[in-house]
Amino acid sequence: MVTPERLRAFFAPRSFALIGASDRSAFSRLVYGNLTAAGHADATHLVNRRSPEVHGRPAHRTCAAIGRPVDLAFVMVPAAAAPDAVRDAAAAGARGVLVLSSGYAETGAEGRRRQEELAGLAEELGVVLMGPNVLGFVNVAAGVPAMALADPPSGPGDVALISQSGASCGAMKDFAALAGVGLSHVITVGNEAMVTVGHLVDYLVDDPATKAIAVFMEAVRDPEVFAAAARRAARAGKALVILKAGRSALAARAAASHTGALVGDDRVIDAVFERLGVIRVDTIEDMLVTAGVAAHTGPLDRPGAGIVSISGGACDIIADLADGAGAHLPELAEGTVRRLAEVLPAYGAAHNPLDITGAAIMNPEIWRKAVAAVGDDPSVGVVVAVNSLPWREDDGPFYGQRFVDAIGAGMAESRAPALYLTQVTQPVGRRARAVLDAGGVAHAVPGLRLGVEAIARLARWSAHRAEDETALREHAAPAPRVALPEGDAFSEVDARALLEAAGIPVVPARHVRSAEEAGRAAAEFGGPVAMKIVSPDIAHKSDLGCVRLGVTAAEAAAVHDEIVAAAQSPAAKGARLDGVLVSPMRAEAPELLVGVTRDPDWGLLLAVALGGVLVEVLDDAVLSPLPVTPARARAMLTGLRGAAVLRGFRGAPAADLDRLAEVVAAVGRLAAALGPDLESLEINPLWVCGSRIEALDALVVRRTPHT
Amino acid sequence: MVTPERLRAFFAPRSFALIGASDRSAFSRLVYGNLTAAGHADATHLVNRRSPEVHGRPAHRTCAAIGRPVDLAFVMVPAAAAPDAVRDAAAAGARGVLVLSSGYAETGAEGRRRQEELAGLAEELGVVLMGPNVLGFVNVAAGVPAMALADPPSGPGDVALISQSGASCGAMKDFAALAGVGLSHVITVGNEAMVTVGHLVDYLVDDPATKAIAVFMEAVRDPEVFAAAARRAARAGKALVILKAGRSALAARAAASHTGALVGDDRVIDAVFERLGVIRVDTIEDMLVTAGVAAHTGPLDRPGAGIVSISGGACDIIADLADGAGAHLPELAEGTVRRLAEVLPAYGAAHNPLDITGAAIMNPEIWRKAVAAVGDDPSVGVVVAVNSLPWREDDGPFYGQRFVDAIGAGMAESRAPALYLTQVTQPVGRRARAVLDAGGVAHAVPGLRLGVEAIARLARWSAHRAEDETALREHAAPAPRVALPEGDAFSEVDARALLEAAGIPVVPARHVRSAEEAGRAAAEFGGPVAMKIVSPDIAHKSDLGCVRLGVTAAEAAAVHDEIVAAAQSPAAKGARLDGVLVSPMRAEAPELLVGVTRDPDWGLLLAVALGGVLVEVLDDAVLSPLPVTPARARAMLTGLRGAAVLRGFRGAPAADLDRLAEVVAAVGRLAAALGPDLESLEINPLWVCGSRIEALDALVVRRTPHT
Repeated sequence: MVTPERLRAFFAPRSFALIGASDRSAFSRLVYGNLTAAGHADATHLVNRRSPEVHGRPAHRTCAAIGRPVDLAFVMVPAAAAPDAVRDAAAAGARGVLVLSSGYAETGAEGRRRQEELAGLAEELGVVLMGPNVLGFVNVAAGVPAMALADPPSGPGDVALISQSGASCGAMKDFAALAGVGLSHVITVGNEAMVTVGHLVDYLVDDPATKAIAVFMEAVRDPEVFAAAARRAARAGKALVILKAGRSALAARAAASHTGALVGDDRVIDAVFERLGVIRVDTIEDMLVTAGVAAHTGPLDRPGAGIVSISGGACDIIADLADGAGAHLPELAEGTVRRLAEVLPAYGAAHNPLDITGAAIMNPEIWRKAVAAVGDDPSVGVVVAVNSLPWREDDGPFYGQRFVDAIGAGMAESRAPALYLTQVTQPVGRRARAVLDAGGVAHAVPGLRLGVEAIARLARWSAHRAEDETALREHAAPAPRVALPEGDAFSEVDARALLEAAGIPVVPARHVRSAEEAGRAAAEFGGPVAMKIVSPDIAHKSDLGCVRLGVTAAEAAAVHDEIVAAAQSPAAKGARLDGVLVSPMRAEAPELLVGVTRDPDWGLLLAVALGGVLVEVLDDAVLSPLPVTPARARAMLTGLRGAAVLRGFRGAPAADLDRLAEVVAAVGRLAAALGPDLESLEINPLWVCGSRIEALDALVVRRTPHT
Repeated sequence: MVTPERLRAFFAPRSFALIGASDRSAFSRLVYGNLTAAGHADATHLVNRRSPEVHGRPAHRTCAAIGRPVDLAFVMVPAAAAPDAVRDAAAAGARGVLVLSSGYAETGAEGRRRQEELAGLAEELGVVLMGPNVLGFVNVAAGVPAMALADPPSGPGDVALISQSGASCGAMKDFAALAGVGLSHVITVGNEAMVTVGHLVDYLVDDPATKAIAVFMEAVRDPEVFAAAARRAARAGKALVILKAGRSALAARAAASHTGALVGDDRVIDAVFERLGVIRVDTIEDMLVTAGVAAHTGPLDRPGAGIVSISGGACDIIADLADGAGAHLPELAEGTVRRLAEVLPAYGAAHNPLDITGAAIMNPEIWRKAVAAVGDDPSVGVVVAVNSLPWREDDGPFYGQRFVDAIGAGMAESRAPALYLTQVTQPVGRRARAVLDAGGVAHAVPGLRLGVEAIARLARWSAHRAEDETALREHAAPAPRVALPEGDAFSEVDARALLEAAGIPVVPARHVRSAEEAGRAAAEFGGPVAMKIVSPDIAHKSDLGCVRLGVTAAEAAAVHDEIVAAAQSPAAKGARLDGVLVSPMRAEAPELLVGVTRDPDWGLLLAVALGGVLVEVLDDAVLSPLPVTPARARAMLTGLRGAAVLRGFRGAPAADLDRLAEVVAAVGRLAAALGPDLESLEINPLWVCGSRIEALDALVVRRTPHT
C-alpha cells in the first residue's frame, strides 16, 4: 500500500545508494553529480559488483557492504539483475527504490510481466518503488535532487511538477525556471508500477510547501486513486493543472507507440476532469504558468479580472484574448470609476481593461492609485498590472524601477490578489526578480496570452469548486438501490416502468396485444398515434419496420398486424414478441437525447445531446460523471452548442429549464440506483414542449459480466 | 501621393534634424542617442528656438540655420508650432518628416482638423509625413535607427515590423530579439495622416531585405491601398502576418477609447484578410514567430509537416496541437518508412510525429538520417526537428552540440525546408545562435505551440495563395454591367427576373392578379402551392400575413383575396400592390441563405449560411469578398459548421456541390454586374434537393446615395 506517510519518508531520504553506478552511465553521472553538488557526498554510496572505484570514489559490491543504512536506492542495473538489487537495498534498510532502468512494460508483454514481479517484490519487502523507466525526483525544500536530469531546481517554490515523460521533464523544469515559477518538487513517475500520479497528488495535498500541482500525463493509470486525490486537492484549494496528451486520434496513436497506455475517448477525460476540479491545459507553458498563478492567488473569491495597462495596444489584445478564453473582465463599479477619475488625465476613459495612458510616465503615482482602485472593485477577484520587465541579464540600469515600485505599492493596497503581467513571453530571470523584489511585487507572468488564459481557467475552477461543494453536499445521500427486472434484456415497457417509478415523465401508452385493441387505443387517444413493437430482443425497431408514426385511428388495426408481421420476418431472428405499444403523436418541439453509459475507467457517465438534425450535424453532446445535480444538469443543457433551440425558437415555447434539469437529474439518479447492474440507459427522444416534458422512447441494457 | 520611390528615399536618410530637441524630452534624448550610437552624430542636427545648446551640443534656431541639407526631420514641437516646423524642414531640403508630437486626431475633432491641415501642408510641400503621434522607424539594413525607443535592433534580419501602437512596439521588437526573429525594419505609423500601413506594405514588397511583414493594427485606414498592397505581397510570396485587434466587442470599445479608429464587424475583416492572403494572428508572439518562419521557408510547396523528436511526450503534445490548429501531419510514405527502418531501433515505430527514441543519445547519426528521410518524404513541405537549446547565456559547455550538428546535417540533406523547434518557449539568444550556427541550422522557433500554429497558418496560406492565383485569373474578366430596373425599390417579380437572366434557377411561378387566376394557377401546378403578395414596398411579407404556404388548389382563390386584404391593412402603410405570386411547394430539403451586402470599407461581400434552424441556432455564416469563383463558393459551403446537412442527411439526397457552387458563384457575378447600384441582394431560401436547386424567394435593394 502506498500511503502519504510512506511517500513522505520516501521523499525525505538522508542517505543514498547508486546500484549499478558507473562512469559510463549518464544516469549515474547525473545523479551522483546532483547529490554531491547538493551536499550529500558523504551520504551517497556507490555500488558496483565489478569496479572497485566509480566517479573517483571507492565503490561497494553490494548495499550490505556499505555498512551504513541506506534510505533511498537508485537501481540502474539491467532488468534481470533488478530483483536482487531491490532485495539488497531493502536489506540495507532502504525505504524506497527508484528504478531508472528501462526494459519493462514499455517494451511489451514480457516486460510487463517483469515489471509486475518487481512491484510485487517491493510490496512484499515493504519498499516504495518509483518507476521503472524513471528519472527520479527533486524535493526542493528538503534539498534532495535525487534525479538524473541536469540543472535541478534549487530555489524552493510552491508548485509541484509531476511528469510521466522523463525526456520532456527537462524542458518543463527549464520553462518553470525561465518563467519564474518556483517548484517545490519535480517528480518523474515512469511506468507507475507501484506509485501512480494519484498517490503523488494525495501526498502533495498535505505537503505544506506545495500550493498547486502541475502534471504532464498520457494516461491515468489508477482512476480510483487519482479521482480521490484530485477531489482532495480541489477541496484543499490546491489547483491540479494537468497537461493530458491524447486529445487527437493522432496523439492517441503516438502515445500507444511509445507507452503501454490506453488512451480513452477524450471527451470522457474532459468531463471527468471538470467534475474532479482538474484544470486541463494543452501546453507545457500553460501548465506551469497556470499552476504558478494558482499557487500565488489561491482560489479567486470573484470571477472578474481587472486589468491596468499603460499600453492601449495591450488593452486591445487582452480584450480579444479574454473574449476567446472566456475570462471575465467586468465593467468597473461607479465607485471605482470615481476613484480613477481623480487620478487619470481627462482623456483617459475608466474602462476595464484600463488604459492609464502615457501620463503615468510623468506620474508613476497613477500606477499605484489605479492598481489599488481596480483591485478594490467589488467585481474584481484578481488585479493585473501589465508592464514591461527587463529580460536581458546583462542590461544596464532599469529605467522603469519607479513604475514597478508604484505598481507594487498599489498591489499592497489592493483587496484582491495581484499579478504583474509582461506584454510578451520573456524570461523572468535573476534581474527581473530583483526588480520585482525591490518593488514588492510577488508574482509575475510572462506574456498576455499565457496570463489571460491562466486567469480564465483559474476563475472557472474557483467558481465551479464552490458550486460543486454546495450542490454535491445536497446530493450526497446515495440513492436507494433499484433492482433491474429479471432477465438479460428489457423491452420498452420495462424501461417505461423504471422511468415512471423514478419520477421521469413518459408519454402515455397502451400496451395492446391485438389489432382490435390497437384500433380501440388509437381511437381513445383521439388523434394520430405512434405504434411500436414490444420486444426484449429488438433494440433498433425502426430498422425492422417495427415503428410507425402518425397512424390514424382508422389505420391502427391494420398497422398493428403489419408491425407484428415485420417483427416475425427472418430479419428479426425469432425475437420474443410482447404486443404493441400505442402512444399519441406529439407536436414538433425540441427533442433531446439523455443517456447514461458506462466507461471502463470512470464508471457511469450521463450524456445530454440535442436530438434531430442538431445532434447529427454538430456532434453536440455534453457529458458528466454521476451524480448530476439539477444545477449541473442545467449547466450541461445550456452548455450545448445548439442550446438556442431550448430558448424558444420559431414560435415554439421556451423550454422550462428548471423542470428539464430536474428530469435530467432524475435520469442520473435512476442510473445510480440501478448501480453495477446497469450498462446503459437511453431516452431518445425526450420531448420538450415548454414545461411539458416526456420520454417518447427508452432503452435499458443490463451489464453483462466482463464488460 | 505616397509612392514606393518616395518611401525608399524616406527610409534612407543621410542627415537628420531634431526640431524641438530638448534635454527634458525623453523622445529627443532617445532619438539623439540612437542616431549618434549608430554613427550619425555628425549628420544629426539639433534645432531649438530658445536653447543654444541641447544634449551638450550647439543647437540651431531653425533648419535653415543649419546651413547643410537635411533629409529627415523629427518634429517634436507642440501642434500649433508644427506647420512652421514642417515648412522650415522642407525649405532645408527634407524629403521626410516624422511628427512625434501628439495632440492630433486621437484627441477629437479639433485635433483631426489640425492633422488634416498638417498632412495637406506636407503634400503641398512634397514632403512625406509619418505620424503624427509616432515613434519613428529603424531601417536596420541601412543602419538608421530613427526611433524614440530604447535598444533598437541592429543585427539585420528579414522580417519587417509595422505597428500602429508606439507603446507596444517596444515589447514587439524585444520579443523578436528574444525569439531570434531578425528584423529588417521597425516602423511605427501613429495616426497615419499621410503614410498608411498599406503604403508601407507596398514599399516593403519591393524591399530586397524583407522576406515577410508583421503588422500590429487596430484599424485599416485606407482599405483600397491596403488591399492592393496585400495582394502584391501575396503574389510576391512575402507573407503578411497581421495582429488586428478588435475581435471582441470589448476590444472594439477599448480601441475606440484610445484611437480615432472605427472597428467594423470582425467577420468581415476575417473574410477580407483571407481573400487578400493575409495571415491573421491573435498575439504578438504568434505574429513574429509566424513571420519569422515564413521569411525562412517562403511559401510551402506541400501542406504537410514532418516532425522528428527524441521525446515521446513532445510527439503527443504536437499531435494534439496540430489537430487543434489544423496543421497537416501526413502519414509517412512507404519509401520513407523503409529509409527509417534502417536507422531506428526495432521498437521505434515510423509514424509522424516521429519519435526517434533515446537511442539517438548514443547515436546522433539517427538524428541526421531521420531528418533527411522525413524531409524527403513526398507529402512533407517542411521538416521540423524538436530538440533542446541552451537558453541561459551563462551556462557551461553545451553537451548537446553533437545532436545539433547531426540535425543540421540532416537539414542540409533534406529536400523540404527545415525548422528547429524547442519544446518550450525560451530565448534564442547569443549562445543558442552560436550553437545553431555551429551546427548549420538556419532557423529555430521557441515552443511547440508557437511553432505548430505558425506552420499550420503558413501551410494554409501557401495552399490558398496557389488556388487563388489560378481561379481568380480565370474569373478576371469583369462581368458585363447589368442595370437595375428603374425605380427605387423592386418587387420579388423584378428580383426573379434578374436572377433568371443571370442563369440562377428560380422556382416556377405565376404572377396572378385575381382570385380566379390564382385558383387556375394552383390547379395547374397540381399540388399545394405557396402564395405571396407582389409589392416593391413590402420587404417582410410574412410579418404582414402576405405569405401563405401549403395552399391547395381549392383554397387558392380565397387565399388570394385574404393576402390582398392583408396587404391593404393599415400595417402595410399604403404599399403599392402588383398582384400575387403562386409557386409550387417544394419537399423538405436543406435550405441556404445566399446574399450579397455592401461593407462601407470593403465593398460587396457574399455570404452563405444554412437556412432554417441551423442559421438561427448557430449563427453559422461564411463571408467572402467578390469575386467568388465556383471553387471558392465550394470552399465556403464546406466551411459551414453545419455543412453535414449538405452531405445527404436522414435520407435526403446529398447536395450536388458542384452545381450548388456554380449557383452561388453566379449570385456573386450578378452582384458584381449590378455594381455600384447594388446595396444588397438576398436569396432566402435557396432550396437544395440533390442537383435540383431553386431560389424560392429573393430580395434586391438599390443603393441609395450617401450609403
